[in-house]
Amino acid sequence: MNAPIVIDSVAALRAQVRDWRQAGLKVAMVPTMGALHDGHISLVRIALEQAERCLVSIFVNPTQFAPTEDLDKYPRQLARDLDQLRGAGAHLAFTPGVSEMYPSGFASKISVGGPSRGLETDFRPSFFDGVATVVAKLFLQAAPDCAVFGEKDYQQLCVVRQLCRDLDLPVEIIGAPTVRDTHGLAMSSRNAYLGEAELDIARKLNLVLRRTAAALSAGADEATATEDAAKALVSAGFQKVDYVAARASVTLGPWQRGHDGRLLAATWLGTTRLIDNVEIPSA
Amino acid sequence: MNAPIVIDSVAALRAQVRDWRQAGLKVAMVPTMGALHDGHISLVRIALEQAERCLVSIFVNPTQFAPTEDLDKYPRQLARDLDQLRGAGAHLAFTPGVSEMYPSGFASKISVGGPSRGLETDFRPSFFDGVATVVAKLFLQAAPDCAVFGEKDYQQLCVVRQLCRDLDLPVEIIGAPTVRDTHGLAMSSRNAYLGEAELDIARKLNLVLRRTAAALSAGADEATATEDAAKALVSAGFQKVDYVAARASVTLGPWQRGHDGRLLAATWLGTTRLIDNVEIPSA
Repeated sequence: MNAPIVIDSVAALRAQVRDWRQAGLKVAMVPTMGALHDGHISLVRIALEQAERCLVSIFVNPTQFAPTEDLDKYPRQLARDLDQLRGAGAHLAFTPGVSEMYPSGFASKISVGGPSRGLETDFRPSFFDGVATVVAKLFLQAAPDCAVFGEKDYQQLCVVRQLCRDLDLPVEIIGAPTVRDTHGLAMSSRNAYLGEAELDIARKLNLVLRRTAAALSAGADEATATEDAAKALVSAGFQKVDYVAARASVTLGPWQRGHDGRLLAATWLGTTRLIDNVEIPSA
Repeated sequence: MNAPIVIDSVAALRAQVRDWRQAGLKVAMVPTMGALHDGHISLVRIALEQAERCLVSIFVNPTQFAPTEDLDKYPRQLARDLDQLRGAGAHLAFTPGVSEMYPSGFASKISVGGPSRGLETDFRPSFFDGVATVVAKLFLQAAPDCAVFGEKDYQQLCVVRQLCRDLDLPVEIIGAPTVRDTHGLAMSSRNAYLGEAELDIARKLNLVLRRTAAALSAGADEATATEDAAKALVSAGFQKVDYVAARASVTLGPWQRGHDGRLLAATWLGTTRLIDNVEIPSA
């Protein structure tokens, strides 16, 4: 595979995408914060099934981190990321600096209501404002035909869909299944923070969620089942559970038995916060 | 002149603009709330100097009105508007309904900081969120090359420029000089609310602003000059003055003598709120 073109300015990005479009090529985008793993690579593969050209943005977006969060220690490994993108066949890596994305005087913010309410927002109040604003900017800079987001960040996927619908952003959003290790642990750049003993605990998260989702479909009481799940996570070794919650799968409003649902959770292992989610089968 | 094409759906609008673009035609947009007057028509003329096709949106945007404001009585006169657009040579009138712009479930908002702080925002706290959100939507629906906004709504013009810069909206914003009657009164759809005696008073607004701007350039103390202007407006018959303020002309931050400045005012005549602004000559 050829190495991807690496571009760090919006002007050069627009020129390249314009060239592709004039050549009649469809363009798919995969927005990332780098520290790429097999989950990201699966998004690139899906992008390449949808379009002739795949562009991957790598930008650790400061506006979606709270002052107490891990912005500074978030893993950055551009050379390794570019190697992986070459292997996956991505055509372009867009690697803007902070001042290219947020020049001096930058002062705007996009807030998406609806699916951004509750869950992550209860614990990271500005997170989805930061995500929505940077995703809108990236879409307006790159003007892709479609973009692929992982279901791992399920609430984010719902928020991005709502963003595009509400602001008439002409980008088709494609959700991609979560990639897991053989023990069911969802791939995450933050797994790099975990030691071997913590990884053993982390691998219980998906198991507890799948068991709880099955119990909910089978008729278990929602409040009892989600409280039991939180207790099971603490017993398994998680220090703290931010939430385990059943929600409607598109709006993320209250889940109603018999309708499409999603069971979402956020938990802590030491100073590392892990999230995961599974479908609640409707029968 | 041919009558403009009238389109009320986003899908049809996009199809028409795509056709124009494929034919190599440049497209200029003039966003309005209808009740068109000579000020709007001057924007259409400027648009037609910039581009081969001019599209005018007519949409009384509910999200920029506060519950106490004049949304219901705001003048609506589509047939007359279309006559005027035909006379001016506009090619397309986009006249979406509220449910086309804000379908059920709509939940997003854009907030622009910087120039939106103070002035209008002190009296209409949600106004520029409403403006920024609808302008971003209109731009993303229509995808014009450029858009023309009147300097009459000077703070709005600055906010729209900041919006496009911050969100990478690829639309060139063109500011157009305020059109005035022979007595200096700025054209405004809200002038329709005024009786003859009130019009006589309204015509003093621009006079007071020009006199004050000249005094400021000539070295008058800023606080004294703007307070005197507010008193002069009340003496002239205005019931209330929301603000008379000197600001830097691009950022709308504090004005510094010797730099480009703008003197902006908002006043009340009965239940009608009028705004105007003039340049503060730098020497």
